[in-house]
Amino acid sequence: MKLAVGIDIGGTNTVFGFVNQAGNVLYNESLKTKYFCTADTLVDTLAKKIKEKLSEQTDWELIGIGIGAPNANYYKGTIEHAPNLDWKGILPFADYFKKYFDQPIILTNDANAAAIGEMVFGSAKSEKDFLMVTLGTGLGSGFVSNGELIYGHDGFAGELGHTIIEINGRKCGCGRRGCLETYASATGLVRTAQQWVPEDPYSTLHHYNKTELSSRIIAEAAAEGDQLALKIFDFTAEKLALGLANAVAITSPKMIILYGGVTQAGDLLLKPLRKYFEETVQNIFQDKIQIVISELDDANPAILGAGALAWKGLMNTSTALSAGN
Amino acid sequence: MKLAVGIDIGGTNTVFGFVNQAGNVLYNESLKTKYFCTADTLVDTLAKKIKEKLSEQTDWELIGIGIGAPNANYYKGTIEHAPNLDWKGILPFADYFKKYFDQPIILTNDANAAAIGEMVFGSAKSEKDFLMVTLGTGLGSGFVSNGELIYGHDGFAGELGHTIIEINGRKCGCGRRGCLETYASATGLVRTAQQWVPEDPYSTLHHYNKTELSSRIIAEAAAEGDQLALKIFDFTAEKLALGLANAVAITSPKMIILYGGVTQAGDLLLKPLRKYFEETVQNIFQDKIQIVISELDDANPAILGAGALAWKGLMNTSTALSAGN
Repeated sequence: MKLAVGIDIGGTNTVFGFVNQAGNVLYNESLKTKYFCTADTLVDTLAKKIKEKLSEQTDWELIGIGIGAPNANYYKGTIEHAPNLDWKGILPFADYFKKYFDQPIILTNDANAAAIGEMVFGSAKSEKDFLMVTLGTGLGSGFVSNGELIYGHDGFAGELGHTIIEINGRKCGCGRRGCLETYASATGLVRTAQQWVPEDPYSTLHHYNKTELSSRIIAEAAAEGDQLALKIFDFTAEKLALGLANAVAITSPKMIILYGGVTQAGDLLLKPLRKYFEETVQNIFQDKIQIVISELDDANPAILGAGALAWKGLMNTSTALSAGN
Repeated sequence: MKLAVGIDIGGTNTVFGFVNQAGNVLYNESLKTKYFCTADTLVDTLAKKIKEKLSEQTDWELIGIGIGAPNANYYKGTIEHAPNLDWKGILPFADYFKKYFDQPIILTNDANAAAIGEMVFGSAKSEKDFLMVTLGTGLGSGFVSNGELIYGHDGFAGELGHTIIEINGRKCGCGRRGCLETYASATGLVRTAQQWVPEDPYSTLHHYNKTELSSRIIAEAAAEGDQLALKIFDFTAEKLALGLANAVAITSPKMIILYGGVTQAGDLLLKPLRKYFEETVQNIFQDKIQIVISELDDANPAILGAGALAWKGLMNTSTALSAGN
């Protein structure tokens, strides 16, 4: 059975899994990214685990490895200056993998991988113009226009999280201030909470100390009607709406698909987001653009996206080959 | 001789001309847009003038008409809710022209037309990823990715001028606040001057009353070393740099080409713009992106762009036809 390996490297967790052509994840596993002091030690471990699994399952045939990672360069196979990873500089990630595998290794921005996942397996199968936004530790994005991912001249397009929405706003991991992801991400939610909780002794969030607060705890409090937690989601939605409205002015997508930890809050985020988005977006785009949460398998959209990247690479190659015959 | 007609409809002037396949403008003329109370009376006049010229020049053969206009919809051939035009609502502009001509009528956003002009005749002939920004009455933009214009799902992509760069900023013609074009455009320059001149009695701009101030007068004062005028350009460049840095984060172009009235200021704009851009853009894009002023024939880039639109339409059709044979 032919299978792709999909790997998603996140600021907190690195997940990998085996993905078949129908978009099912046959096996998956998670590692703590921060446990690995260098990128190549993470790759060593991943390669070992993938090879172990392949030797156990003798009928599994590896067709390629797709990797989604922050600040990944599609053209060069590198991860460069990723603000949410501890490894700094320019890392030749694809090269690290090529030491272990002969199959194609394709690396891209984690949100680009997710966008390809939506095109190959998800709700964007028939969309030529859509925007994928991942709300995890940071905010990632993948823009699809005319049915093609926008990689940009250097492979780094799709950094919506690092558009500045507030001059002199919050300090960002990228070294600047006011980036969208400092407000609209799991980290952004927590920063808002850390700022507001001390001022509100009536909130249930007051029971947690600063370092305990997480997007999940805030979402749970909001779901139980905590007014401050609801206000934090409202504020986050307002900021995200501005970032999305600006992105829409540039590429005019038909659909915006959200995924990542923060979207587990569901309507707590989606309802105020849709309201603020319609209030904020330019009139020519009003009531035209769907904002939805990804319907890909809850546990594995990141793996599916990265796996889809490898499958799509193979499909493009075979299309090219048959066109050449 | 085969010729395309290129028409550029601007908030102040409407220009049209005959463009040959080599990118030369053989004849051009300008009309004041505001003299025409309705869009169809402007089209009547344009059609009459084009037909007159064609009957004079018996060896001229019209191959098509390309039109660049603010808020133009490429798919529908309409101009919709253009903030800088006096005609409101949805105007079936291509249909107005079809009453007079059997040739293809192609309409797009004025900046998209300019981008196509750069691809067909200008400095972006070998670029697959670039951004065209027009600094006229408003701020228009055309994004080219993977060698294709980004039209978006509805034909309205490329509205960089209506990305919000300042929350609760200046009131914009689109009904919202803080749009980039309220700062970075001829109108934006004048608004800054109108705000600052009364507070600075030493500036030579103080000799003009509010309604006399224009981007040309401000540029002339800056060229002569007027400190306030230089400060106005510096401020405009800073705002434009932020808008461009945000756009770059999304599409990562190799080149940003500026054109339009404001760019006649040359280095007065370009020098502070490049400085602020490098300071503002995310580190992964620093020192990678060229910002240049269009090198297309000074008088006629808008006509060339619109003409290129008609020529490109014809080329695509003939490519499609020969591919089909």
